[in-house]
Amino acid sequence: MSAPHDKGWLTVIGLGPGGPHLTTPSVTSVISEATDLVGYGPYLDRIKGQEPGQRRHASDNRVEVERAGEALRLAAEGRRVAVVSGGDPGVFAMAAAVFEAIEAGDPAWRTIDIRVEPGVTAMLAAAAEVGAPLGGDFCAISLSDNLKSWTTITRRISAAAQADFVIALYNPASRARPHQLGDAFDLLRGLKSGDDLVMFVRAAGTKDARVKLTTLAEADAADADMRTMVIIGSSQTRTIDRPGAHPWVYTPRREMDGEGGA
Amino acid sequence: MSAPHDKGWLTVIGLGPGGPHLTTPSVTSVISEATDLVGYGPYLDRIKGQEPGQRRHASDNRVEVERAGEALRLAAEGRRVAVVSGGDPGVFAMAAAVFEAIEAGDPAWRTIDIRVEPGVTAMLAAAAEVGAPLGGDFCAISLSDNLKSWTTITRRISAAAQADFVIALYNPASRARPHQLGDAFDLLRGLKSGDDLVMFVRAAGTKDARVKLTTLAEADAADADMRTMVIIGSSQTRTIDRPGAHPWVYTPRREMDGEGGA
Repeated sequence: MSAPHDKGWLTVIGLGPGGPHLTTPSVTSVISEATDLVGYGPYLDRIKGQEPGQRRHASDNRVEVERAGEALRLAAEGRRVAVVSGGDPGVFAMAAAVFEAIEAGDPAWRTIDIRVEPGVTAMLAAAAEVGAPLGGDFCAISLSDNLKSWTTITRRISAAAQADFVIALYNPASRARPHQLGDAFDLLRGLKSGDDLVMFVRAAGTKDARVKLTTLAEADAADADMRTMVIIGSSQTRTIDRPGAHPWVYTPRREMDGEGGA
Repeated sequence: MSAPHDKGWLTVIGLGPGGPHLTTPSVTSVISEATDLVGYGPYLDRIKGQEPGQRRHASDNRVEVERAGEALRLAAEGRRVAVVSGGDPGVFAMAAAVFEAIEAGDPAWRTIDIRVEPGVTAMLAAAAEVGAPLGGDFCAISLSDNLKSWTTITRRISAAAQADFVIALYNPASRARPHQLGDAFDLLRGLKSGDDLVMFVRAAGTKDARVKLTTLAEADAADADMRTMVIIGSSQTRTIDRPGAHPWVYTPRREMDGEGGA
Protein backbone atom coordinates (compact mmCIF):
# COMPACT_ATOMS: atom_id res chain seq x y z
CA MET A 1 0.00 0.00 0.00
CA SER A 2 1.16 3.51 -0.70
CA ALA A 3 1.72 5.73 2.32
CA PRO A 4 3.72 8.88 2.78
CA HIS A 5 7.45 8.35 2.56
CA ASP A 6 9.27 11.10 4.46
CA LYS A 7 12.85 9.96 3.85
CA GLY A 8 14.76 7.57 1.65
CA TRP A 9 12.94 4.49 0.52
CA LEU A 10 13.26 1.55 -1.84
CA THR A 11 10.30 0.02 -3.64
CA VAL A 12 10.67 -2.98 -5.93
CA ILE A 13 8.20 -2.67 -8.79
CA GLY A 14 7.06 -4.79 -11.74
CA LEU A 15 6.02 -3.11 -14.98
CA GLY A 16 3.93 -6.08 -16.09
CA PRO A 17 4.70 -8.13 -19.18
CA GLY A 18 3.69 -5.79 -21.95
CA GLY A 19 3.20 -2.12 -22.55
CA PRO A 20 1.96 0.48 -20.08
CA HIS A 21 -1.62 -0.83 -20.40
CA LEU A 22 -0.61 -3.65 -18.02
CA THR A 23 1.30 -1.48 -15.52
CA THR A 24 -0.70 -0.80 -12.34
CA PRO A 25 -1.45 2.79 -11.26
CA SER A 26 0.38 2.05 -8.03
CA VAL A 27 3.58 1.27 -9.95
CA THR A 28 3.17 4.35 -12.13
CA SER A 29 2.84 6.42 -8.97
CA VAL A 30 6.05 4.95 -7.49
CA ILE A 31 7.91 5.77 -10.72
CA SER A 32 6.73 9.38 -10.61
CA GLU A 33 7.84 9.80 -6.97
CA ALA A 34 11.24 8.14 -7.34
CA THR A 35 14.48 10.11 -7.55
CA ASP A 36 16.34 7.07 -8.87
CA LEU A 37 15.34 4.19 -11.15
CA VAL A 38 17.57 1.12 -10.92
CA GLY A 39 17.26 -1.89 -13.20
CA TYR A 40 18.11 -3.89 -16.26
CA GLY A 41 18.46 -1.49 -19.19
CA PRO A 42 15.63 -2.80 -21.39
CA TYR A 43 13.16 -2.49 -18.49
CA LEU A 44 14.22 1.09 -17.79
CA ASP A 45 13.81 1.83 -21.51
CA ARG A 46 10.12 0.88 -21.21
CA ILE A 47 9.56 3.82 -18.84
CA LYS A 48 8.75 6.83 -21.01
CA GLY A 49 9.20 10.37 -19.81
CA GLN A 50 11.42 11.35 -16.94
CA GLU A 51 10.74 13.38 -13.79
CA PRO A 52 12.96 16.47 -13.35
CA GLY A 53 16.25 15.43 -11.77
CA GLN A 54 15.36 11.73 -11.82
CA ARG A 55 18.40 9.54 -12.38
CA ARG A 56 18.55 6.19 -14.17
CA HIS A 57 21.00 3.45 -13.26
CA ALA A 58 20.91 0.82 -15.99
CA SER A 59 22.75 -2.45 -15.59
CA ASP A 60 23.35 -5.78 -17.23
CA ASN A 61 21.01 -8.73 -16.61
CA ARG A 62 23.46 -10.92 -14.72
CA VAL A 63 24.30 -8.76 -11.74
CA GLU A 64 21.07 -8.68 -9.73
CA VAL A 65 22.60 -8.65 -6.24
CA GLU A 66 25.15 -5.94 -7.12
CA ARG A 67 22.32 -3.88 -8.63
CA ALA A 68 20.25 -4.43 -5.47
CA GLY A 69 23.21 -3.31 -3.31
CA GLU A 70 23.58 -0.13 -5.32
CA ALA A 71 19.87 0.58 -4.89
CA LEU A 72 20.08 -0.01 -1.12
CA ARG A 73 23.06 2.35 -0.79
CA LEU A 74 21.12 5.07 -2.61
CA ALA A 75 18.06 4.59 -0.38
CA ALA A 76 20.26 4.66 2.75
CA GLU A 77 21.55 8.07 1.55
CA GLY A 78 17.98 9.37 1.52
CA ARG A 79 17.14 8.83 -2.17
CA ARG A 80 13.74 7.51 -3.25
CA VAL A 81 14.60 4.42 -5.25
CA ALA A 82 12.48 2.27 -7.56
CA VAL A 83 14.07 -1.07 -8.45
CA VAL A 84 12.48 -2.00 -11.77
CA SER A 85 11.52 -5.51 -12.95
CA GLY A 86 9.27 -6.67 -15.74
CA GLY A 87 6.21 -8.73 -14.83
CA ASP A 88 5.81 -9.15 -11.09
CA PRO A 89 8.99 -8.35 -9.13
CA GLY A 90 8.46 -11.28 -6.74
CA VAL A 91 8.37 -14.00 -9.41
CA PHE A 92 11.86 -14.93 -10.65
CA ALA A 93 12.82 -11.25 -10.56
CA MET A 94 14.43 -8.50 -8.49
CA ALA A 95 12.56 -8.66 -5.17
CA ALA A 96 14.37 -11.78 -3.94
CA ALA A 97 17.70 -10.27 -5.04
CA VAL A 98 17.02 -7.17 -2.94
CA PHE A 99 16.32 -9.29 0.14
CA GLU A 100 19.44 -11.39 -0.49
CA ALA A 101 21.45 -8.17 -0.56
CA ILE A 102 19.81 -6.92 2.66
CA GLU A 103 20.48 -10.17 4.49
CA ALA A 104 24.16 -10.15 3.51
CA GLY A 105 24.67 -6.39 3.72
CA ASP A 106 24.92 -3.42 6.04
CA PRO A 107 22.65 -3.93 9.11
CA ALA A 108 21.54 -0.30 8.74
CA TRP A 109 19.75 -1.32 5.53
CA ARG A 110 17.16 -3.12 7.72
CA THR A 111 15.80 0.26 8.84
CA ILE A 112 15.10 1.40 5.26
CA ASP A 113 11.44 1.64 4.21
CA ILE A 114 11.39 -1.31 1.78
CA ARG A 115 8.25 -2.21 -0.17
CA VAL A 116 7.30 -4.55 -2.98
CA GLU A 117 4.59 -3.55 -5.47
CA PRO A 118 2.98 -6.53 -7.22
CA GLY A 119 2.44 -6.66 -10.96
CA VAL A 120 1.00 -8.90 -13.68
CA THR A 121 3.46 -11.77 -14.04
CA ALA A 122 4.19 -13.20 -17.49
CA MET A 123 2.32 -16.49 -17.09
CA LEU A 124 -0.95 -14.63 -16.44
CA ALA A 125 -0.60 -12.62 -19.64
CA ALA A 126 0.43 -15.73 -21.58
CA ALA A 127 -2.56 -17.64 -20.23
CA ALA A 128 -4.91 -14.80 -21.18
CA GLU A 129 -3.64 -14.91 -24.79
CA VAL A 130 -4.86 -18.50 -25.21
CA GLY A 131 -7.89 -18.63 -22.91
CA ALA A 132 -7.75 -19.90 -19.34
CA PRO A 133 -5.20 -22.72 -19.12
CA LEU A 134 -4.40 -21.82 -15.47
CA GLY A 135 -8.03 -22.43 -14.45
CA GLY A 136 -6.98 -25.42 -12.31
CA ASP A 137 -4.14 -25.92 -9.84
CA PHE A 138 -0.81 -24.96 -11.38
CA CYS A 139 2.88 -24.46 -10.71
CA ALA A 140 5.57 -22.12 -11.95
CA ILE A 141 9.10 -23.41 -12.50
CA SER A 142 12.10 -21.48 -13.78
CA LEU A 143 14.21 -23.63 -16.09
CA SER A 144 17.30 -21.54 -15.44
CA ASP A 145 19.97 -23.54 -13.64
CA ASN A 146 22.23 -20.56 -13.04
CA LEU A 147 21.11 -20.53 -9.42
CA LYS A 148 19.79 -24.03 -8.70
CA SER A 149 20.71 -27.52 -9.80
CA TRP A 150 19.18 -29.29 -12.78
CA THR A 151 18.42 -32.15 -10.36
CA THR A 152 16.16 -29.85 -8.36
CA ILE A 153 14.44 -28.69 -11.54
CA THR A 154 13.75 -32.21 -12.82
CA ARG A 155 12.52 -33.30 -9.39
CA ARG A 156 9.96 -30.49 -9.48
CA ILE A 157 8.90 -31.16 -13.06
CA SER A 158 8.36 -34.84 -12.20
CA ALA A 159 6.31 -34.02 -9.12
CA ALA A 160 4.21 -31.54 -11.08
CA ALA A 161 3.47 -34.13 -13.76
CA GLN A 162 2.59 -36.82 -11.26
CA ALA A 163 0.22 -34.49 -9.39
CA ASP A 164 -1.32 -33.32 -12.69
CA PHE A 165 -0.59 -29.62 -12.22
CA VAL A 166 -0.68 -27.26 -15.15
CA ILE A 167 2.98 -26.23 -15.50
CA ALA A 168 4.20 -22.74 -16.45
CA LEU A 169 7.87 -22.70 -17.44
CA TYR A 170 9.72 -19.41 -16.98
CA ASN A 171 13.12 -18.85 -18.65
CA PRO A 172 12.59 -21.84 -20.94
CA ALA A 173 15.53 -21.09 -23.21
CA SER A 174 18.64 -19.02 -23.59
CA ARG A 175 21.74 -19.19 -25.73
CA ALA A 176 23.67 -20.45 -22.70
CA ARG A 177 21.13 -23.24 -22.06
CA PRO A 178 19.93 -24.58 -25.42
CA HIS A 179 19.16 -28.15 -24.31
CA GLN A 180 17.12 -27.79 -21.14
CA LEU A 181 13.65 -27.28 -22.55
CA GLY A 182 14.09 -30.30 -24.83
CA ASP A 183 15.25 -32.33 -21.85
CA ALA A 184 12.21 -31.16 -19.88
CA PHE A 185 9.86 -32.23 -22.69
CA ASP A 186 11.58 -35.63 -22.86
CA LEU A 187 11.14 -36.08 -19.12
CA LEU A 188 7.47 -35.09 -19.31
CA ARG A 189 6.78 -37.47 -22.23
CA GLY A 190 7.68 -40.33 -19.88
CA LEU A 191 5.23 -39.12 -17.23
CA LYS A 192 2.25 -37.61 -19.07
CA SER A 193 0.11 -38.36 -22.09
CA GLY A 194 1.55 -37.27 -25.42
CA ASP A 195 -1.87 -35.74 -26.11
CA ASP A 196 -1.51 -33.20 -23.28
CA LEU A 197 -1.47 -29.67 -24.61
CA VAL A 198 1.59 -27.44 -24.86
CA MET A 199 1.36 -23.69 -25.46
CA PHE A 200 4.24 -21.51 -26.61
CA VAL A 201 3.27 -17.88 -26.05
CA ARG A 202 5.75 -15.27 -27.23
CA ALA A 203 5.63 -11.58 -26.26
CA ALA A 204 2.40 -12.01 -24.27
CA GLY A 205 0.59 -8.78 -23.50
CA THR A 206 2.09 -6.92 -26.48
CA LYS A 207 0.82 -6.29 -30.00
CA ASP A 208 3.44 -8.80 -31.21
CA ALA A 209 1.97 -11.64 -29.15
CA ARG A 210 2.16 -14.97 -30.94
CA VAL A 211 0.69 -18.33 -29.89
CA LYS A 212 1.73 -21.80 -30.98
CA LEU A 213 -0.48 -24.59 -29.72
CA THR A 214 0.68 -28.20 -29.95
CA THR A 215 0.82 -31.43 -27.96
CA LEU A 216 3.49 -32.82 -25.69
CA ALA A 217 4.27 -35.50 -28.27
CA GLU A 218 4.90 -32.87 -30.95
CA ALA A 219 6.41 -30.08 -28.83
CA ASP A 220 9.68 -28.72 -30.24
CA ALA A 221 11.96 -26.78 -27.91
CA ALA A 222 13.14 -24.71 -30.89
CA ASP A 223 9.80 -22.85 -30.73
CA ALA A 224 10.86 -21.10 -27.50
CA ASP A 225 13.21 -18.17 -27.06
CA MET A 226 13.94 -15.71 -24.23
CA ARG A 227 10.59 -13.94 -24.73
CA THR A 228 8.50 -17.14 -24.70
CA MET A 229 6.43 -18.57 -21.87
CA VAL A 230 5.74 -22.30 -22.16
CA ILE A 231 2.57 -23.64 -20.51
CA ILE A 232 1.99 -27.40 -20.34
CA GLY A 233 -1.59 -28.46 -19.73
CA SER A 234 -2.82 -30.95 -17.14
CA SER A 235 -4.76 -34.03 -18.19
CA GLN A 236 -7.88 -31.84 -17.87
CA THR A 237 -6.76 -28.98 -20.11
CA ARG A 238 -8.81 -28.87 -23.31
CA THR A 239 -9.41 -26.91 -26.47
CA ILE A 240 -12.51 -25.33 -28.00
CA ASP A 241 -12.34 -24.94 -31.75
CA ARG A 242 -13.60 -21.73 -33.29
CA PRO A 243 -13.69 -20.35 -36.81
CA GLY A 244 -10.77 -18.29 -38.08
CA ALA A 245 -8.39 -18.39 -35.14
CA HIS A 246 -6.42 -20.80 -32.98
CA PRO A 247 -8.61 -22.78 -30.58
CA TRP A 248 -9.23 -21.46 -27.11
CA VAL A 249 -7.48 -23.47 -24.40
CA TYR A 250 -8.79 -23.79 -20.88
CA THR A 251 -8.59 -25.96 -17.80
CA PRO A 252 -12.03 -26.62 -16.29
CA ARG A 253 -12.45 -25.96 -12.62
CA ARG A 254 -14.40 -29.19 -12.36
CA GLU A 255 -12.72 -32.59 -12.82
CA MET A 256 -14.26 -34.38 -15.78
CA ASP A 257 -15.47 -37.92 -15.12
CA GLY A 258 -13.16 -40.55 -16.52
CA GLU A 259 -10.48 -38.03 -17.35
CA GLY A 260 -8.95 -37.53 -13.93
CA GLY A 261 -5.18 -37.41 -13.72
CA ALA A 262 -3.24 -40.52 -12.84
CA MET B 1 -4.37 -6.62 -26.41
CA SER B 2 -6.92 -3.93 -27.03
CA ALA B 3 -8.12 -3.56 -30.59
CA PRO B 4 -11.24 -2.02 -32.05
CA HIS B 5 -14.39 -3.97 -31.31
CA ASP B 6 -17.04 -3.21 -33.93
CA LYS B 7 -19.83 -5.45 -32.65
CA GLY B 8 -20.75 -7.38 -29.56
CA TRP B 9 -17.91 -8.72 -27.47
CA LEU B 10 -17.16 -10.35 -24.16
CA THR B 11 -14.02 -9.63 -22.18
CA VAL B 12 -13.26 -11.34 -18.90
CA ILE B 13 -11.43 -8.93 -16.61
CA GLY B 14 -9.76 -9.05 -13.21
CA LEU B 15 -9.84 -5.99 -10.97
CA GLY B 16 -6.79 -7.08 -9.00
CA PRO B 17 -6.88 -7.92 -5.30
CA GLY B 18 -7.21 -4.50 -3.75
CA GLY B 19 -8.38 -1.06 -4.63
CA PRO B 20 -8.18 0.64 -8.03
CA HIS B 21 -4.43 1.22 -7.57
CA LEU B 22 -3.92 -2.43 -8.58
CA THR B 23 -6.34 -2.43 -11.53
CA THR B 24 -4.54 -2.24 -14.89
CA PRO B 25 -5.30 0.61 -17.33
CA SER B 26 -6.35 -2.03 -19.85
CA VAL B 27 -9.06 -3.31 -17.50
CA THR B 28 -10.20 0.23 -16.72
CA SER B 29 -10.52 0.85 -20.45
CA VAL B 30 -12.64 -2.29 -20.95
CA ILE B 31 -14.95 -1.18 -18.14
CA SER B 32 -15.43 2.23 -19.74
CA GLU B 33 -16.26 0.69 -23.14
CA ALA B 34 -18.66 -1.97 -21.85
CA THR B 35 -22.43 -1.65 -22.12
CA ASP B 36 -22.92 -4.44 -19.55
CA LEU B 37 -21.00 -5.48 -16.45
CA VAL B 38 -21.66 -9.03 -15.26
CA GLY B 39 -20.30 -10.50 -12.05
CA TYR B 40 -20.48 -11.32 -8.39
CA GLY B 41 -22.08 -8.37 -6.60
CA PRO B 42 -19.17 -7.38 -4.32
CA TYR B 43 -16.83 -7.18 -7.33
CA LEU B 44 -19.26 -4.98 -9.25
CA ASP B 45 -19.53 -2.77 -6.16
CA ARG B 46 -15.78 -2.11 -6.41
CA ILE B 47 -16.33 -0.34 -9.77
CA LYS B 48 -17.08 3.30 -9.00
CA GLY B 49 -18.90 5.53 -11.43
CA GLN B 50 -21.04 4.28 -14.25
CA GLU B 51 -21.01 5.00 -17.98
CA PRO B 52 -24.28 6.41 -19.38
CA GLY B 53 -26.65 3.56 -20.13
CA GLN B 54 -24.29 0.93 -18.74
CA ARG B 55 -26.13 -1.96 -17.10
CA ARG B 56 -25.00 -4.05 -14.15
CA HIS B 57 -25.94 -7.70 -13.70
CA ALA B 58 -24.98 -8.75 -10.18
CA SER B 59 -25.20 -12.37 -9.13
CA ASP B 60 -24.46 -14.72 -6.30
CA ASN B 61 -21.04 -16.37 -5.96
CA ARG B 62 -22.14 -19.97 -6.61
CA VAL B 63 -23.56 -19.68 -10.12
CA GLU B 64 -20.49 -19.03 -12.26
CA VAL B 65 -21.58 -20.99 -15.34
CA GLU B 66 -25.10 -19.52 -15.34
CA ARG B 67 -23.59 -16.06 -15.01
CA ALA B 68 -21.21 -16.82 -17.90
CA GLY B 69 -24.14 -18.00 -20.04
CA GLU B 70 -26.03 -14.78 -19.39
CA ALA B 71 -22.95 -12.77 -20.39
CA LEU B 72 -22.56 -14.80 -23.61
CA ARG B 73 -26.21 -14.27 -24.55
CA LEU B 74 -25.79 -10.53 -24.10
CA ALA B 75 -22.64 -10.46 -26.25
CA ALA B 76 -24.36 -12.55 -28.94
CA GLU B 77 -27.08 -9.87 -29.04
CA GLY B 78 -24.45 -7.25 -29.82
CA ARG B 79 -23.80 -5.93 -26.33
CA ARG B 80 -20.27 -5.12 -25.13
CA VAL B 81 -19.91 -7.25 -22.02
CA ALA B 82 -17.29 -7.21 -19.27
CA VAL B 83 -17.35 -10.26 -17.02
CA VAL B 84 -15.83 -9.07 -13.76
CA SER B 85 -13.57 -11.08 -11.42
CA GLY B 86 -11.29 -10.00 -8.61
CA GLY B 87 -7.58 -10.70 -8.92
CA ASP B 88 -6.71 -12.34 -12.25
CA PRO B 89 -9.73 -13.80 -14.06
CA GLY B 90 -7.78 -16.89 -15.17
CA VAL B 91 -6.79 -18.05 -11.67
CA PHE B 92 -9.65 -19.83 -9.85
CA ALA B 93 -12.06 -17.26 -11.26
CA MET B 94 -14.51 -16.49 -14.08
CA ALA B 95 -12.45 -17.10 -17.24
CA ALA B 96 -12.64 -20.91 -17.02
CA ALA B 97 -16.38 -20.68 -16.27
CA VAL B 98 -16.90 -18.66 -19.45
CA PHE B 99 -15.09 -21.28 -21.55
CA GLU B 100 -17.05 -24.08 -19.86
CA ALA B 101 -20.24 -22.27 -20.85
CA ILE B 102 -19.02 -21.79 -24.44
CA GLU B 103 -18.06 -25.45 -24.82
CA ALA B 104 -21.47 -26.62 -23.59
CA GLY B 105 -23.50 -23.84 -25.19
CA ASP B 106 -24.80 -22.40 -28.45
CA PRO B 107 -22.26 -23.04 -31.26
CA ALA B 108 -22.84 -19.45 -32.42
CA TRP B 109 -21.09 -18.28 -29.25
CA ARG B 110 -17.80 -19.49 -30.79
CA THR B 111 -17.91 -16.58 -33.23
CA ILE B 112 -18.09 -13.97 -30.45
CA ASP B 113 -15.03 -11.81 -29.91
CA ILE B 114 -13.92 -13.26 -26.54
CA ARG B 115 -10.92 -11.89 -24.70
CA VAL B 116 -9.29 -12.33 -21.31
CA GLU B 117 -7.51 -9.40 -19.65
CA PRO B 118 -4.94 -10.46 -17.06
CA GLY B 119 -4.72 -8.91 -13.61
CA VAL B 120 -2.73 -9.08 -10.39
CA THR B 121 -3.73 -12.33 -8.73
CA ALA B 122 -4.11 -12.50 -4.94
CA MET B 123 -0.99 -14.55 -4.21
CA LEU B 124 1.23 -11.87 -5.80
CA ALA B 125 -0.24 -9.13 -3.62
CA ALA B 126 -0.02 -11.38 -0.55
CA ALA B 127 3.62 -12.19 -1.32
CA ALA B 128 4.43 -8.49 -1.75
CA GLU B 129 3.01 -7.74 1.72
CA VAL B 130 5.60 -9.98 3.38
CA GLY B 131 8.60 -9.68 1.04
CA ALA B 132 9.34 -12.16 -1.73
CA PRO B 133 8.26 -15.65 -0.63
CA LEU B 134 7.51 -16.65 -4.25
CA GLY B 135 11.11 -15.98 -5.29
CA GLY B 136 11.64 -19.69 -6.03
CA ASP B 137 9.52 -22.29 -7.82
CA PHE B 138 5.98 -22.32 -6.48
CA CYS B 139 2.52 -23.75 -6.95
CA ALA B 140 -1.03 -22.51 -6.47
CA ILE B 141 -3.69 -24.87 -5.14
CA SER B 142 -7.34 -24.09 -4.44
CA LEU B 143 -8.52 -25.85 -1.29
CA SER B 144 -12.14 -25.71 -2.42
CA ASP B 145 -13.51 -29.18 -3.08
CA ASN B 146 -16.78 -27.96 -4.55
CA LEU B 147 -15.44 -28.87 -7.99
CA LYS B 148 -12.69 -31.43 -7.43
CA SER B 149 -12.12 -34.23 -4.97
CA TRP B 150 -10.27 -33.87 -1.70
CA THR B 151 -8.14 -36.82 -2.88
CA THR B 152 -6.91 -34.74 -5.82
CA ILE B 153 -6.15 -31.83 -3.50
CA THR B 154 -4.15 -33.92 -1.03
CA ARG B 155 -2.25 -35.60 -3.87
CA ARG B 156 -1.17 -32.17 -5.11
CA ILE B 157 -0.25 -30.89 -1.64
CA SER B 158 1.87 -34.00 -1.07
CA ALA B 159 3.67 -33.65 -4.40
CA ALA B 160 4.31 -29.97 -3.75
CA ALA B 161 5.83 -30.74 -0.36
CA GLN B 162 7.99 -33.52 -1.69
CA ALA B 163 9.31 -31.33 -4.52
CA ASP B 164 9.89 -28.44 -2.08
CA PHE B 165 7.70 -25.92 -3.87
CA VAL B 166 6.51 -22.81 -2.11
CA ILE B 167 2.74 -23.40 -1.85
CA ALA B 168 0.07 -20.71 -2.21
CA LEU B 169 -3.35 -21.86 -0.98
CA TYR B 170 -6.37 -20.14 -2.50
CA ASN B 171 -9.82 -20.48 -0.89
CA PRO B 172 -8.27 -21.81 2.32
CA ALA B 173 -11.44 -21.60 4.39
CA SER B 174 -15.16 -21.09 4.23
CA ARG B 175 -18.07 -21.74 6.54
CA ALA B 176 -18.98 -24.76 4.43
CA ARG B 177 -15.46 -26.19 4.66
CA PRO B 178 -14.09 -25.48 8.14
CA HIS B 179 -11.78 -28.50 8.46
CA GLN B 180 -9.80 -28.55 5.22
CA LEU B 181 -7.03 -26.11 6.01
CA GLY B 182 -6.35 -27.88 9.30
CA ASP B 183 -6.25 -31.20 7.45
CA ALA B 184 -3.84 -29.69 4.91
CA PHE B 185 -1.53 -28.47 7.69
CA ASP B 186 -1.63 -31.93 9.32
CA LEU B 187 -0.71 -33.55 6.02
CA LEU B 188 2.15 -31.10 5.47
CA ARG B 189 3.52 -31.62 9.00
CA GLY B 190 4.15 -35.25 8.04
CA LEU B 191 6.07 -34.24 4.92
CA LYS B 192 7.93 -31.03 5.74
CA SER B 193 9.92 -29.57 8.61
CA GLY B 194 7.84 -28.01 11.37
CA ASP B 195 10.20 -25.02 11.10
CA ASP B 196 9.05 -24.20 7.57
CA LEU B 197 7.38 -20.80 7.43
CA VAL B 198 3.65 -20.20 7.07
CA MET B 199 2.21 -16.80 6.16
CA PHE B 200 -1.41 -15.80 6.64
CA VAL B 201 -2.05 -12.64 4.63
CA ARG B 202 -5.50 -11.09 4.93
CA ALA B 203 -6.88 -8.40 2.61
CA ALA B 204 -3.61 -8.14 0.67
CA GLY B 205 -3.29 -5.04 -1.45
CA THR B 206 -5.70 -3.00 0.70
CA LYS B 207 -5.15 -0.59 3.57
CA ASP B 208 -6.53 -3.28 5.89
CA ALA B 209 -3.83 -5.79 4.98
CA ARG B 210 -2.73 -7.90 7.92
CA VAL B 211 0.11 -10.42 8.12
CA LYS B 212 0.57 -13.28 10.54
CA LEU B 213 3.86 -15.11 10.26
CA THR B 214 4.34 -18.48 11.97
CA THR B 215 5.77 -21.94 11.41
CA LEU B 216 4.17 -25.08 10.08
CA ALA B 217 4.40 -26.62 13.56
CA GLU B 218 2.46 -23.71 15.06
CA ALA B 219 0.10 -22.88 12.18
CA ASP B 220 -3.55 -22.64 13.24
CA ALA B 221 -6.22 -22.91 10.57
CA ALA B 222 -8.45 -20.58 12.61
CA ASP B 223 -6.22 -17.70 11.45
CA ALA B 224 -7.62 -17.95 7.90
CA ASP B 225 -10.94 -16.74 6.56
CA MET B 226 -12.39 -16.12 3.09
CA ARG B 227 -10.19 -13.06 2.56
CA THR B 228 -6.95 -14.78 3.60
CA MET B 229 -4.21 -16.16 1.36
CA VAL B 230 -2.02 -18.81 3.00
CA ILE B 231 1.55 -19.18 1.72
CA ILE B 232 3.70 -22.07 2.95
CA GLY B 233 7.41 -21.64 2.47
CA SER B 234 9.81 -24.14 0.94
CA SER B 235 12.80 -25.44 2.92
CA GLN B 236 14.68 -22.44 1.49
CA THR B 237 12.25 -19.70 2.54
CA ARG B 238 13.75 -17.50 5.25
CA THR B 239 13.18 -14.43 7.37
CA ILE B 240 15.13 -11.23 7.89
CA ASP B 241 14.49 -9.54 11.21
CA ARG B 242 14.11 -5.78 11.27
CA PRO B 243 13.28 -3.26 13.96
CA GLY B 244 9.67 -2.32 14.61
CA ALA B 245 7.84 -4.56 12.13
CA HIS B 246 7.27 -8.19 11.25
CA PRO B 247 10.31 -9.81 9.62
CA TRP B 248 10.62 -9.81 5.87
CA VAL B 249 10.14 -13.25 4.31
CA TYR B 250 11.80 -14.30 1.09
CA THR B 251 12.83 -17.34 -0.89
CA PRO B 252 16.33 -16.99 -2.32
CA ARG B 253 16.75 -17.68 -5.99
CA ARG B 254 19.90 -19.61 -5.17
CA GLU B 255 19.82 -22.91 -3.29
CA MET B 256 21.72 -22.58 -0.03
CA ASP B 257 24.37 -25.22 0.61
CA GLY B 258 23.30 -27.83 3.11
CA GLU B 259 19.72 -26.63 3.17
CA GLY B 260 18.45 -28.18 -0.02
CA GLY B 261 15.02 -29.78 0.05
CA ALA B 262 14.67 -33.48 0.56
